Amino acid sequence: MTTSTDTASATLPPLRVGLAGLGTVGAGVVKLLNENGALITRRAGRPIAVTAVSARDRTRHRDVDISPFQWEDDALALVGRDDVDVVVELIGGADGPALTLARAALAAGKPFVTANKAMLAHHGITLAELAETRATPLKFEAAVAGGIPVIKGLREGAAANQLSRVYGILNGTCNYILTRMEKEGLEFHSVLAEAQRLGYAEADPSFDIDGIDAAHKLAILASLAFGSRPAFNDVETHGIRGICLADLRQAAVFGCRIRLVGEAAASNNTLLQRVRPMLVPLSHPLSAIEGPLNAVVAEGNFVGRLLFSGPGAGEGPTASAVVADLIDIARGEDGPAFAMPVSALGHAEPASHGTRRGRYYLRLSVHDRPGVLADLTATLRDAGVSIESLIQPASNADELALVVMLTHEVAEQSVVRAQAAMADLPVVVGGSLMMPVLSTDS
Amino acid sequence: MTTSTDTASATLPPLRVGLAGLGTVGAGVVKLLNENGALITRRAGRPIAVTAVSARDRTRHRDVDISPFQWEDDALALVGRDDVDVVVELIGGADGPALTLARAALAAGKPFVTANKAMLAHHGITLAELAETRATPLKFEAAVAGGIPVIKGLREGAAANQLSRVYGILNGTCNYILTRMEKEGLEFHSVLAEAQRLGYAEADPSFDIDGIDAAHKLAILASLAFGSRPAFNDVETHGIRGICLADLRQAAVFGCRIRLVGEAAASNNTLLQRVRPMLVPLSHPLSAIEGPLNAVVAEGNFVGRLLFSGPGAGEGPTASAVVADLIDIARGEDGPAFAMPVSALGHAEPASHGTRRGRYYLRLSVHDRPGVLADLTATLRDAGVSIESLIQPASNADELALVVMLTHEVAEQSVVRAQAAMADLPVVVGGSLMMPVLSTDS
Repeated sequence: MTTSTDTASATLPPLRVGLAGLGTVGAGVVKLLNENGALITRRAGRPIAVTAVSARDRTRHRDVDISPFQWEDDALALVGRDDVDVVVELIGGADGPALTLARAALAAGKPFVTANKAMLAHHGITLAELAETRATPLKFEAAVAGGIPVIKGLREGAAANQLSRVYGILNGTCNYILTRMEKEGLEFHSVLAEAQRLGYAEADPSFDIDGIDAAHKLAILASLAFGSRPAFNDVETHGIRGICLADLRQAAVFGCRIRLVGEAAASNNTLLQRVRPMLVPLSHPLSAIEGPLNAVVAEGNFVGRLLFSGPGAGEGPTASAVVADLIDIARGEDGPAFAMPVSALGHAEPASHGTRRGRYYLRLSVHDRPGVLADLTATLRDAGVSIESLIQPASNADELALVVMLTHEVAEQSVVRAQAAMADLPVVVGGSLMMPVLSTDS
Repeated sequence: MTTSTDTASATLPPLRVGLAGLGTVGAGVVKLLNENGALITRRAGRPIAVTAVSARDRTRHRDVDISPFQWEDDALALVGRDDVDVVVELIGGADGPALTLARAALAAGKPFVTANKAMLAHHGITLAELAETRATPLKFEAAVAGGIPVIKGLREGAAANQLSRVYGILNGTCNYILTRMEKEGLEFHSVLAEAQRLGYAEADPSFDIDGIDAAHKLAILASLAFGSRPAFNDVETHGIRGICLADLRQAAVFGCRIRLVGEAAASNNTLLQRVRPMLVPLSHPLSAIEGPLNAVVAEGNFVGRLLFSGPGAGEGPTASAVVADLIDIARGEDGPAFAMPVSALGHAEPASHGTRRGRYYLRLSVHDRPGVLADLTATLRDAGVSIESLIQPASNADELALVVMLTHEVAEQSVVRAQAAMADLPVVVGGSLMMPVLSTDS
């Protein structure tokens, strides 16, 4: 189509970026600004240009040309440069150089853009206070759900609502592993090894598969959604190591898929935060989120249920979110980091997980003998847990059998009690797993 | 949870709203500000309060109390009031009082918020120019997809991307009718009558079911996505009156559902805009959007495919979007109405629909005689249309039969030519319908 060149925008002074970290995402930011520069100038009202960069190794081969940029061995030196208006941090790590850089940039009154969820989950409040003191933007769209503009969606799009719940699929590695197990009929460890080969999982995958990465993101989302300070330490966090193929198959029998879900819900003046593998009913849109995609659902008292989905990680999507923040800064749109001034943020009282009611999935390994179901069901009855379905699939050659159950709605502590009591039964070998069923009420 | 009261925010001067139109959405805005006022004050940094209202009939019964507000018989008088900082227009209509009010408010330098897609599709550019001249915000999140923050999602969230395509389900009435036909096995007219009884469809439903409402919304989305002036007259618009239950059933056989899709795609310097019932493959997330929900997909060169879904209309969701705009204004976040200054917007050259390639669904009514398929397939061959599947379901008692076909990828003009030639065959009775299959490439 014919577009007028906006010479007025192009000749305005550029927003000059100092970029710390030239890994996958950093290189993506450079590529994006190169490729979409003219369009971004029209949208931002002025050019956005990297002027200086810093990374661990200047000489490392990269698939972007960094020769046009000034080089700093020390990322901190970016802050003091006269040709840097805004600092972008893509180093990573909750503490260390990333945090030092964040503090220095904000203290110097330079807008700061980061994709660093760990740092925000741990130090977001002190950084937001520093940003407020200096009236300087602190922005982090790329920290949660990659390219999906969910920070903006909660902070601005859903801002008119009291939210009751925000939840979603926040870790693409786990979602890739779970959907791949499901589709290919493979066990966890072989899919993990494959994901590591393909670069979908790190050499040390524990941050992802143990749910910590999702918990960082959830703490940030919960803060934005509920107007409370991020409380990462209050997130009950479970990963997906314990999920086996049989669980996925039994979940399907119950009309569900298994997803690692981060969920934050406010009720009775308390805030529940948990990252857990859950059974997601097929009727719920999260069950359709596959592979490395992410999705976030927010439920508000006027808007109802909103869903945002898209690529949750990777070079292009994450760079897209970083540059969206830069465009906001170039346009002069900023405001408080956590949607309201730190002084207005509440302290969320953590909810008791034990009293939370819901439906639960339970799986046990048992000796396949007559009477085993009678023992199990008596134990459940004594713990006050009422069962909706119980399935004992055909046993293995070694005469161990799985038993899976779906409870009616019950307090979690009753299920935990039943699970412990069943573990003590002589017929139960172990291999016990409990998962909540995602509530589809909104 | 314990939240500190932000006394600093609460004592700042409120953003004072003059509200024109007290129908469903207007009443929803009043309710929302009443119910969520304290939270909105924290998020907006200051209170947002309706001070004056105007509607056709002061005495009409409403389920909100308007006695605390100043009353104006003439909405235009809201603009001149000293106690009105921002004008919200919820009157509707492309021209007339809504347009007069928009011009007056912007000319007076008062920020203007509207849910009026018809007015924006027809007069958006002149209003945006006026807003720019006065450096006054013109905002319209509620005009497209109700409560889903898709204007913000395109304007800001996806701003770093060159978008190749934006498309979605933009009319809840049509989506309600189509999904209800599908699930209940009912024909169009009985579901329409039911929707009218339930208030999901207007007494005169033509704006919705003929695709005009969706076309207004698509023209706005396309402008934001492609940096071009809204070009409503270039939208090829078809509605859903011609869809019968048999089409939904045959679409299912082809692994698809039928949805009214608004689609804008840029290629070769041209812009294709169309609103059409389409076959949406079950593998595509739009096929799962049911009932009155809306969804918008944007495909960008870095972010990949983003999907936003949620309630597309109604009191609560639309009020949520209107108040999100007010919060942005209270925060001082505004910027150009169509994401860039009017001078930077291009004129999109409309794409030729005829040369667009894709797969198509064709349905015909024929006399159930030997040789009919030979006649049809010869005609298709002569028009250069290659067929992927052809189904002739069991014929009716009256010896008319439906024939449905799915083409391989072909230029639309070839299908149109084949359709016309088949209509001339003696065996063809009529009842011909052609629908594109939504492309799932991104």
